[in-house]
Amino acid sequence: MIDQAALVYDNTQIRWVGNEQELPAQYGNEDSVDCGQRLVIPGLIDCHTHLCFGGWRGDEFEMRLQGRSYQDIAAAGGGIRSTVAATRANTAAQLIEKAADALRGMLELGITTVECKSGYGLERATELKQLEVYKQLNEQQPIDLVPTFLGAHLVPDEYQRNREDYIHLLCKGLIPGISRKKLAKFCDVFVEEDAFSITEARQILTAAKEAGLGLKVHADQLSNSGGAQLAAELGAVSAEHLEYADQQGIRALARSGTVAVSLPLASLYLRERYMPAREMLDGGVKVAVATDFNPGSAPSYHLPLAMTLACLNQQMTPQEVLMGTTTVAAGAIAAERQIGSLLPGFRADITIIDSDSVNHWLYHFRANACCGVLKSGQWAKALKQ
Amino acid sequence: MIDQAALVYDNTQIRWVGNEQELPAQYGNEDSVDCGQRLVIPGLIDCHTHLCFGGWRGDEFEMRLQGRSYQDIAAAGGGIRSTVAATRANTAAQLIEKAADALRGMLELGITTVECKSGYGLERATELKQLEVYKQLNEQQPIDLVPTFLGAHLVPDEYQRNREDYIHLLCKGLIPGISRKKLAKFCDVFVEEDAFSITEARQILTAAKEAGLGLKVHADQLSNSGGAQLAAELGAVSAEHLEYADQQGIRALARSGTVAVSLPLASLYLRERYMPAREMLDGGVKVAVATDFNPGSAPSYHLPLAMTLACLNQQMTPQEVLMGTTTVAAGAIAAERQIGSLLPGFRADITIIDSDSVNHWLYHFRANACCGVLKSGQWAKALKQ
Repeated sequence: MIDQAALVYDNTQIRWVGNEQELPAQYGNEDSVDCGQRLVIPGLIDCHTHLCFGGWRGDEFEMRLQGRSYQDIAAAGGGIRSTVAATRANTAAQLIEKAADALRGMLELGITTVECKSGYGLERATELKQLEVYKQLNEQQPIDLVPTFLGAHLVPDEYQRNREDYIHLLCKGLIPGISRKKLAKFCDVFVEEDAFSITEARQILTAAKEAGLGLKVHADQLSNSGGAQLAAELGAVSAEHLEYADQQGIRALARSGTVAVSLPLASLYLRERYMPAREMLDGGVKVAVATDFNPGSAPSYHLPLAMTLACLNQQMTPQEVLMGTTTVAAGAIAAERQIGSLLPGFRADITIIDSDSVNHWLYHFRANACCGVLKSGQWAKALKQ
Repeated sequence: MIDQAALVYDNTQIRWVGNEQELPAQYGNEDSVDCGQRLVIPGLIDCHTHLCFGGWRGDEFEMRLQGRSYQDIAAAGGGIRSTVAATRANTAAQLIEKAADALRGMLELGITTVECKSGYGLERATELKQLEVYKQLNEQQPIDLVPTFLGAHLVPDEYQRNREDYIHLLCKGLIPGISRKKLAKFCDVFVEEDAFSITEARQILTAAKEAGLGLKVHADQLSNSGGAQLAAELGAVSAEHLEYADQQGIRALARSGTVAVSLPLASLYLRERYMPAREMLDGGVKVAVATDFNPGSAPSYHLPLAMTLACLNQQMTPQEVLMGTTTVAAGAIAAERQIGSLLPGFRADITIIDSDSVNHWLYHFRANACCGVLKSGQWAKALKQ
């Protein structure tokens, strides 16, 4: 934290940062903006979302309040499957309109980069439709989208009796083309009893690696199946969820440098345990915090709420949480040299928070404490004076 | 819930409500506003806050994250005592500016009535200063304030060795005058091991009742001391917190009709248990939901967040939670004939929510889903079309 700081940026990059008394003379006559006694932080990065989806699942919210589990609801035809049906039924234009509305809300909160997954298609046309939606949205609005192919979210109903054919479709039919057309930067697999086994995940992720995609793993969310170790073994940039990660998993992530992405809103909404983030940090694991925004288990894109929950329910310090949504989150999308920091050379993605400290910001939870956003050096949300 | 509803109001009251096809002809030519497919609900009531205070206590947020308890921190001179020092040191103008800022944020969220307690003075001058702040704020801005005298928040340091003198000051020196000058509608007592005993609370509340004040009790928050039974015995309008209430307490509240006020944000921030709201509702107790906004245990006035938490962590249904912040909350401040309902004759305090159902509103948590507020028939927050 620099008190009485000054920061110099141009159309794309940060050029200088330090105490304003040390501002180099060459910048003395540039236009300047006074941010008052407020926090100036790197633009926030939401490094795990399922941004593009059809429909909502408010009915499941009430079912879960009555004590039904996420797995029960999925087995009864709800859960991810019901969103797959709605996403297949929607046109690209409908999906764009809905996701654009969420992105507007995210930008207002100070978020400048969003990782976003496919995985509600589970068939060629709809998986590609989701990735095309991200490509178009990337061109239409200020937030940078980082797309991830999550065809391995679930085995679709059509392949329940021949799941190896679905895996073949992913590995041979979809991954190479998606990589070639640069429709995704990463490939992710949901490793869970009702989704994909460790063996299947290794097969899919190996194909993705060979095709040149980066790797992510949905690991150990509802049970411990060794997902953390697999992510470490394959050199994934990140392992996500990890509510049930054990000591072995934690040690593996620490050794490999894989980022653990904590998703406290999913724990809140599912009334499930939280990732053992404190243990992970103490064990040398890098921990990011994201929303998991999706219509089922985390129907909120309010990243600052996830941050406050990470403090309260995971004993992360406010400083660790800020790192987890900036520097460390950048690492979770392999962009740690471009974004997530205010050092010279980084992209001029800058968020202004109406608080005088990180601690006070995350302690005094408000609807929206963000009072200005610069995206690549342009005011995407005008500064409130 | 009325679909395709119409509602007629004048400068102060609701005149008619029903299906728009049944709108009486006499209203057919009045000016009208189209609220689209959005929820129209009674203005929200936050029936438990400590709105006026000096300073903040962000340092304690980090201490609690490190595992120190609320009681530990209080014993070390933090907690309520540190806010008392800051509130005594602030001028009325400083306190007004700070509380007015919170009220602006509350109005934006759709809150039209706020109960607000003294209790950070613990001496004549500062308790009266807090109540005068509420009186002035009531005249300066749209939200209705309902003041409560909480001189019995804690025994101040000056009276640690002669606590009976402090109780005498409350009963004889402060309560009669406060009631006579109408500076408070209610008297509240914090019944807890480190605050006031049942015997002391009975003495103070009996004096308040004799002076004509309504009664409220901070009961069973950190341990079970029989506070719920005391509230029921004395005919208090409400018992607040109740995290540790037992079967006896629940039965007593059900019999007396005393409203149980749940404060989920305090449970979240203190990392403590939640009020057993489901058991209470099933046992016939009326349950309200409020923020407890204060600088220590609940530094947020985001009532919709408290509402979503009441669903997720207390198994209240969205409908029960909406009742708990409107009709039932009105009962907790003895205003059930004036506010908290959209029936004819009630005050025209109306909040518009950008959702098509209560369920979807509380499930899809957003920074602020409120898109318009009418206070006594005037647009206090203009409707976003």
